[in-house]
Amino acid sequence: MSVQALFNPRSIALVGATDKSGWSVSTLLNLRTHGFPGPVHLVNPRGGVVHGSPAFRSLAEVPGPVDLAYVMVPTAAVLGVLREGAKLGIRCYVVLTAGFGEAGSEGARLESEISAFAVENDLTILGPNGNGYINAAADVTPYGLPIPAPLLRGSVGVVLQSGALASSVLAFAQSRNLGVSLLTSMGNETVVTVTDVIDYLVDDPATKVIALFLETIRNPAEFSRVARRALAAGKPIVALKIGRSRLASNTAQAHTGALVGDDDVIDAALRQLGVIRVRSLEDLIITAGLLASYGPLPGRRIGVVTPSGGASEIIADRAEDEGLELPPFAPETVARLAEIVPSFGTVQNPLDVTGYVLIDRTLLGRALEIVTADPGIDLVMLLSEPPRIAPPDPAPSFALYSASAARIAAAPVPVVVVSNVLTDVTEFGRRVQQETGFPYVVGGIEHGLHAIGAAVRWCETHSRALPHTAAAQADLIPQPGTTRKPRTNTQPETSTHAPATATTASPVALPAGIGGVWAEHRASALLASAGLPVVPSVLAGTEAEAVAAAERFGYPVVLKIAAEGLGHKSDIGGVRLGVTGPEEVRQAYRSLTTTTTVPAPPPTIDPTPSPTTPDSDPPSLAGILVQPQRTGGIELLVGIVRDPAWGLTLAVGLGGVWVEVLRDTALRVLPVDAGEVRRALSELRGVALLRGARGAEPADLDAVAEVVARIAAFAETLGVRLESLEINPLLVTGSHVEALDALVTWRPAN
Amino acid sequence: MSVQALFNPRSIALVGATDKSGWSVSTLLNLRTHGFPGPVHLVNPRGGVVHGSPAFRSLAEVPGPVDLAYVMVPTAAVLGVLREGAKLGIRCYVVLTAGFGEAGSEGARLESEISAFAVENDLTILGPNGNGYINAAADVTPYGLPIPAPLLRGSVGVVLQSGALASSVLAFAQSRNLGVSLLTSMGNETVVTVTDVIDYLVDDPATKVIALFLETIRNPAEFSRVARRALAAGKPIVALKIGRSRLASNTAQAHTGALVGDDDVIDAALRQLGVIRVRSLEDLIITAGLLASYGPLPGRRIGVVTPSGGASEIIADRAEDEGLELPPFAPETVARLAEIVPSFGTVQNPLDVTGYVLIDRTLLGRALEIVTADPGIDLVMLLSEPPRIAPPDPAPSFALYSASAARIAAAPVPVVVVSNVLTDVTEFGRRVQQETGFPYVVGGIEHGLHAIGAAVRWCETHSRALPHTAAAQADLIPQPGTTRKPRTNTQPETSTHAPATATTASPVALPAGIGGVWAEHRASALLASAGLPVVPSVLAGTEAEAVAAAERFGYPVVLKIAAEGLGHKSDIGGVRLGVTGPEEVRQAYRSLTTTTTVPAPPPTIDPTPSPTTPDSDPPSLAGILVQPQRTGGIELLVGIVRDPAWGLTLAVGLGGVWVEVLRDTALRVLPVDAGEVRRALSELRGVALLRGARGAEPADLDAVAEVVARIAAFAETLGVRLESLEINPLLVTGSHVEALDALVTWRPAN
Repeated sequence: MSVQALFNPRSIALVGATDKSGWSVSTLLNLRTHGFPGPVHLVNPRGGVVHGSPAFRSLAEVPGPVDLAYVMVPTAAVLGVLREGAKLGIRCYVVLTAGFGEAGSEGARLESEISAFAVENDLTILGPNGNGYINAAADVTPYGLPIPAPLLRGSVGVVLQSGALASSVLAFAQSRNLGVSLLTSMGNETVVTVTDVIDYLVDDPATKVIALFLETIRNPAEFSRVARRALAAGKPIVALKIGRSRLASNTAQAHTGALVGDDDVIDAALRQLGVIRVRSLEDLIITAGLLASYGPLPGRRIGVVTPSGGASEIIADRAEDEGLELPPFAPETVARLAEIVPSFGTVQNPLDVTGYVLIDRTLLGRALEIVTADPGIDLVMLLSEPPRIAPPDPAPSFALYSASAARIAAAPVPVVVVSNVLTDVTEFGRRVQQETGFPYVVGGIEHGLHAIGAAVRWCETHSRALPHTAAAQADLIPQPGTTRKPRTNTQPETSTHAPATATTASPVALPAGIGGVWAEHRASALLASAGLPVVPSVLAGTEAEAVAAAERFGYPVVLKIAAEGLGHKSDIGGVRLGVTGPEEVRQAYRSLTTTTTVPAPPPTIDPTPSPTTPDSDPPSLAGILVQPQRTGGIELLVGIVRDPAWGLTLAVGLGGVWVEVLRDTALRVLPVDAGEVRRALSELRGVALLRGARGAEPADLDAVAEVVARIAAFAETLGVRLESLEINPLLVTGSHVEALDALVTWRPAN
Repeated sequence: MSVQALFNPRSIALVGATDKSGWSVSTLLNLRTHGFPGPVHLVNPRGGVVHGSPAFRSLAEVPGPVDLAYVMVPTAAVLGVLREGAKLGIRCYVVLTAGFGEAGSEGARLESEISAFAVENDLTILGPNGNGYINAAADVTPYGLPIPAPLLRGSVGVVLQSGALASSVLAFAQSRNLGVSLLTSMGNETVVTVTDVIDYLVDDPATKVIALFLETIRNPAEFSRVARRALAAGKPIVALKIGRSRLASNTAQAHTGALVGDDDVIDAALRQLGVIRVRSLEDLIITAGLLASYGPLPGRRIGVVTPSGGASEIIADRAEDEGLELPPFAPETVARLAEIVPSFGTVQNPLDVTGYVLIDRTLLGRALEIVTADPGIDLVMLLSEPPRIAPPDPAPSFALYSASAARIAAAPVPVVVVSNVLTDVTEFGRRVQQETGFPYVVGGIEHGLHAIGAAVRWCETHSRALPHTAAAQADLIPQPGTTRKPRTNTQPETSTHAPATATTASPVALPAGIGGVWAEHRASALLASAGLPVVPSVLAGTEAEAVAAAERFGYPVVLKIAAEGLGHKSDIGGVRLGVTGPEEVRQAYRSLTTTTTVPAPPPTIDPTPSPTTPDSDPPSLAGILVQPQRTGGIELLVGIVRDPAWGLTLAVGLGGVWVEVLRDTALRVLPVDAGEVRRALSELRGVALLRGARGAEPADLDAVAEVVARIAAFAETLGVRLESLEINPLLVTGSHVEALDALVTWRPAN
């Protein structure tokens, strides 16, 4: 397979070209009007004249080599075209024809034939059921829908799991005067997938930013790999991933369970991978355009220069929403601004130079120059935009915007130009930008600050990732299967996320008897064996042993029933708290061993029911656990659950109302380091409690993060049969962190 | 004052007209090109030729009557112009000139002279420091900045506390092909205020929706009055009120205190008044346009018809965000759709009729007709928009959109047309809309669903308000002062929100000694005297009295110190819980009376420090309170605090982490009824606890709401000196609701 060859043919054949098809008309028109330099051959089995030119009856009749066949024949005829083409040495195809996997079982069968044939013959096929692509950077536009003129060449690569939205995205980018490098409509991804195209774009010198519209992430491991490559290459990925709603996710229910919807896992994964997730097509393109046009934004401290008080205040509100800072200007900046801003204005950040700009057209530019020199800001947001309508004499406009463009280019910090509202860059505006070098205008304060916020956060993720990039590529990338299997969209591939056993932690010798639910006495011992902090514990088989243990720990102690395959002890009255003397220990021991009914295995980790059934025996009493009773501290819940798509995921949260009512957990896909866990903890709404609110002793968040990261790393050593590992609670008292209870669930063998 | 006359002059004089001023040029050009039918007189003290016409030297020289003088003379000359005009009988003025209150103390002095002169002479003045207005409905455009052509006449009235943003709003409305009825740039609001203009718009037959850009709400009582008028008239108000951020609100700090920022009060008030609050200029105009074009939207159940699967899924996500429902289609709808949707499509809501629309241009329209007939939906969202570019032969386009427009007009439910992305309605698109009657296109899925959500919620508020409208107008409107005082923007008027004593509840006979902090023994007695449920309590002066009370209540009991002016008892060790026998009562009594140090008056209600200092004596021991001890139940906090702008506000929340860490309170401006309190409770993040989460007994939310509403009504009877009334906790056990502690703080008598 060669995606490079697919997107860079020197000659193209349109197979199934016919005057009756709008797609055929558009594709030829696109190739002819948008500069494709090579030959375009028309193929129609009936021959004759098509689109005013003679058509060949078959690919075999075409003189000279064909690099790409654009296939529009009926569904049943597609495989025949591929066979003929393969025989002729044609390696690359776009298949526009629909009626495959998306249309039912017969279509799926045809699609899998195509897929198999492509693998056997090493063909590169985009589609079927896709409109093709627009390689604007190379003037190659085999694309089946009208391309609104002008086609703007630029540095945003767009990949869409949607045909119809491609036109909207193109139209919107054009309205922003933003060019694309490549735009592809993926279709069914039978052979070439989204991740293949991302891979290509990471290497494509014409592409600076990658914009994605995703309905599904077919292969999380592959997606992670290319996302990490993009991050390492400094090419931001902006993604509109739909399926956030219950309506949309109902179909793919019950992955990580009720506590965290599937989309929460995707959201966490995208964030960890440095993928900027947006929720609208406008934000997709505006954010991609910002990053493509202005490059990395070095920090959160923004100086704002505007000609409007009202706009300044909108900006102040929205900047706070986005976590951006508008620091006060330095004294020297204030002094210099005071010399030029009219006396009825106020010198502050955000700066309103006042409507006096209508009289002194240089005012905004001079203020900009002063603000960009302020030592305390990382970038400047300038409220400006080219005129919408050509004035009778456009020369002064051109001069003004030329001067402004020069000033922006010479500024010591990035100057991001944002318009007040999101209206099209008009034809005249585009001319002004082209002729003066006036930069990309971020569309409107609302979307603009969203985009700036996202870009700043991306840059932080990027900087954080930089030192680890090599390590990340070596260590953290799940290895996809070595032989690439073809796929169809009717059978989405599940994760090939391999366990990180061999790379991220030393493998441990697993005790015998893996399977089913491991209750506390076995789960805690497993954790302790890995050197993780677990409350001391003795499994007593007699009253005397229990008393001896209690005496050694000192009172009060806790007694708990220990039974194989038993999940939640307290639900069945299997716990005695605050046991304060030897007689009380005996009494508790007796009552636990005699009156507690050991039930059948409960559902596994709660509140995340496992989709698998444990293959263990029914529970049987193993003894009574004796532990010292802890008081005070803050209880955390640490859950590691295997997501069928993304592999092991970590959920961390505070206990009590925080998780039960507020579902206040932070989620990460493994592996994680302590820094990532620290960030996860700081996302919790209840983090104030960890920091000492309500009189609690402040928790040492670094110590907590380090322990949780070690637990996560340990979970990764436990192999593919680990279904879940829950520590509830993990007690935190200052810098003392200790697991008070644990539960491990294993998946059935095979 | 006559705002009606201000906005509807038959003749206008431009005073200070000069070729040197861009404002002068624009104003005259606007009047001449946008159809003002009456005479426009130019006045310049030097006479001569201005803008190509002879100028008069003074207003007195102008022949015939002048209905409106548009004043652009230097700051110091403005009062002179008013004097001359008043003498000539000119009643209405727009003052563009700046340099008044916004420019310092000298300017403020000049402004107050103008204000006083206007009141004396009953002049109606818009400004100063404003660009004037555009009465598009009446072709009157005395407006100092260029008006982008074409000026579209429509039914949205726009009022802006900003000059510079007016141009952006006009440009954006134009890009949506949305017309305005009136647009005003308010300036300093020396005479005519935002609320005066809203009042006018409520009565203006050309206006259906009112859009506001607000920097400040100068007079909450007046604003409440006009907002209620608008709601009663069925004219939605959409407002972008800035100042949400800490940066912006730092200046107007500490109104309702730390727990609820000023903006939270404004937010609550706007919601109660049915004002739709948006956060962007785009949402302001798009939402106003939706409501103006489609009228009331009858419900939340939306049928979606699109030609794109990708768009459908974006819509599903965004609809859920907005609390909108996309119910499954009825079986008969599914059956009818299955006949027309291509076999490779899926019949569901949201409906993607597939890209086959490119081949069968009637498909979308036929699907629309079927979906609008579905019995289970309230409105249809149709993804469509007029073409951006004129095709070589536009006739089929016109025919298609005419048919579509007819179908939409004939549909049994509202059909809201939304475009995929927010791009301008182009000139050709505008032509298509004008010639075919194709309706307003809501700009893009993102803003569109936000607007639909807001519109649906407004309609719900409107329906709820309808039966009460007369009552609301009679009872709930705070009465502004009867003599209207002139104001300047340097001294914003504070609330004239009068106490509702006379109208909303029967006045009570207040006990003597109002002032300072009333601790529990007085505060609870006050509540009990009003028939509110308070835990029984005896103020014991001797050990024997305490024991007698305890014996009567039954054990365990609680003993609390009762001291005049004392706030939080537990902070100073003034509470004994779980007292279980007579000897223990005696012991507790002794220890409370001897060992507790009664400190100086603490800060008043916590966590909302009062800005006033209580005018009471230092605390002195009044006795010991004895109460039965309650167990179980859920603790609520009910705080009523006087906001300096909006008057008494109610904050209700759960105790503990909910308020201390999460600040999880719901806020309302008084008066409230039980229904409003019920809605406030249901906004709490902790509401699940009230509904029985974590094993708690479910609270009877109606009973809680009824008690809280009674507490609020009682607070309103306590007169203007009530600073705050806090009940913490209000214990809820099922349907039993009881105040366990209370604190009242009074403002000093001035």
